[in-house]
Amino acid sequence: MAKKVIDPESEMNMPQPALRRLPIYFGYLKQLQERGVKIISSSTIAEDLNLHPVQVRKDMALTRVSGKPRTGFKVDDLIEDLARMLDYNNLKNAIIVGTGHLGSALLNYGGFEGYGLNLMAAFDLDKNQVGRKIGVVVIRSMDDLRDIITENDVQIGVITVPQKAAQDVCDQLVDAGIKAIWNFAPTHLQVPAGVILQNENIAASLSVLSKRLSDQQQREAQK
Amino acid sequence: MAKKVIDPESEMNMPQPALRRLPIYFGYLKQLQERGVKIISSSTIAEDLNLHPVQVRKDMALTRVSGKPRTGFKVDDLIEDLARMLDYNNLKNAIIVGTGHLGSALLNYGGFEGYGLNLMAAFDLDKNQVGRKIGVVVIRSMDDLRDIITENDVQIGVITVPQKAAQDVCDQLVDAGIKAIWNFAPTHLQVPAGVILQNENIAASLSVLSKRLSDQQQREAQK
Repeated sequence: MAKKVIDPESEMNMPQPALRRLPIYFGYLKQLQERGVKIISSSTIAEDLNLHPVQVRKDMALTRVSGKPRTGFKVDDLIEDLARMLDYNNLKNAIIVGTGHLGSALLNYGGFEGYGLNLMAAFDLDKNQVGRKIGVVVIRSMDDLRDIITENDVQIGVITVPQKAAQDVCDQLVDAGIKAIWNFAPTHLQVPAGVILQNENIAASLSVLSKRLSDQQQREAQK
Repeated sequence: MAKKVIDPESEMNMPQPALRRLPIYFGYLKQLQERGVKIISSSTIAEDLNLHPVQVRKDMALTRVSGKPRTGFKVDDLIEDLARMLDYNNLKNAIIVGTGHLGSALLNYGGFEGYGLNLMAAFDLDKNQVGRKIGVVVIRSMDDLRDIITENDVQIGVITVPQKAAQDVCDQLVDAGIKAIWNFAPTHLQVPAGVILQNENIAASLSVLSKRLSDQQQREAQK
């Protein structure tokens, strides 16, 4: 692979918008790879993903892969380097609390391993759910939470319980040693310093779409 | 309400990261309002939402609400202006295709109306699903797609079908007059110019969390 020198410190402090795009490139390139595509230009990537070509060129410059003028980047090399940058090769154990529709959707998603995450256990507050199977995972009792986390060195906890139960579940996860929380409950959780919290706000994404639609209609009305 | 003059053009071209934060402020302020909080400072907002205080001050400057020095912003005013900026008061009709776990989770979410979206009909490719009820919505046949879209002036289509079916469903939606697509299928869709496409990439968010965790562990190891 043609290697460029990248400062590891700058890679560690990559801005979040760029970091959010890398897995999108990764998924897209995987699809190209499956179709047998060997070389791709940044302008084709930009076109296919509806991104600005300058943006794509800047993002590609974050990788260690050098493109060839007038041809492009080797797809295999980009995939390999993006996997390295995103730490996809080190599978991290994660557990999920809440096995309603959203929890079930995540457990059935099945594609997380390709993104470095092993969703290896599920828990529910409702004891009647314990023992039920979702995909390959059996729902466990909250009483087993601490043991499972300790035994499997689990560091990521996913919260898909209703809003009202979320803070209590969050506290239990932190107490049991979880270091990073991925919260899907539509509420703001308090975590101690040193614990990473990421809120998944579906309504926020929706608003971006909805606003883009309004703006487009306004522009058309002004014509 | 203390009003500032805001250039409507600049509001229309708001950068996406800022636009993504506005609904998060909105949800947070709604929670404060329910608890009876009247005034909030930007530094408290920053602390509660784990954002940088400078970031919050810049975002608040995008609104028409002026804060008072040493006290803060009126919660009611901020909520009202954010709703205006995000166009939450104009309820937009939307339909969803795909009623598996993720589709059901979205239909049961129930909180979209507060964010300006009326998810008013659901469709499934599997004819055996037709007639089944999810929440208040009955699953319809794809044969009814065009009529429902036309009769209800539906402009937003949500795709929660498996990857393989997504492009075909997308084509049918565009063909039936949909102007904006919110795609949850993990694949890259092709849409004609003038149709807005927004991909919801759950794996991308996960990667951000996972990378933050790796970076933190690396920093701790270096100590």
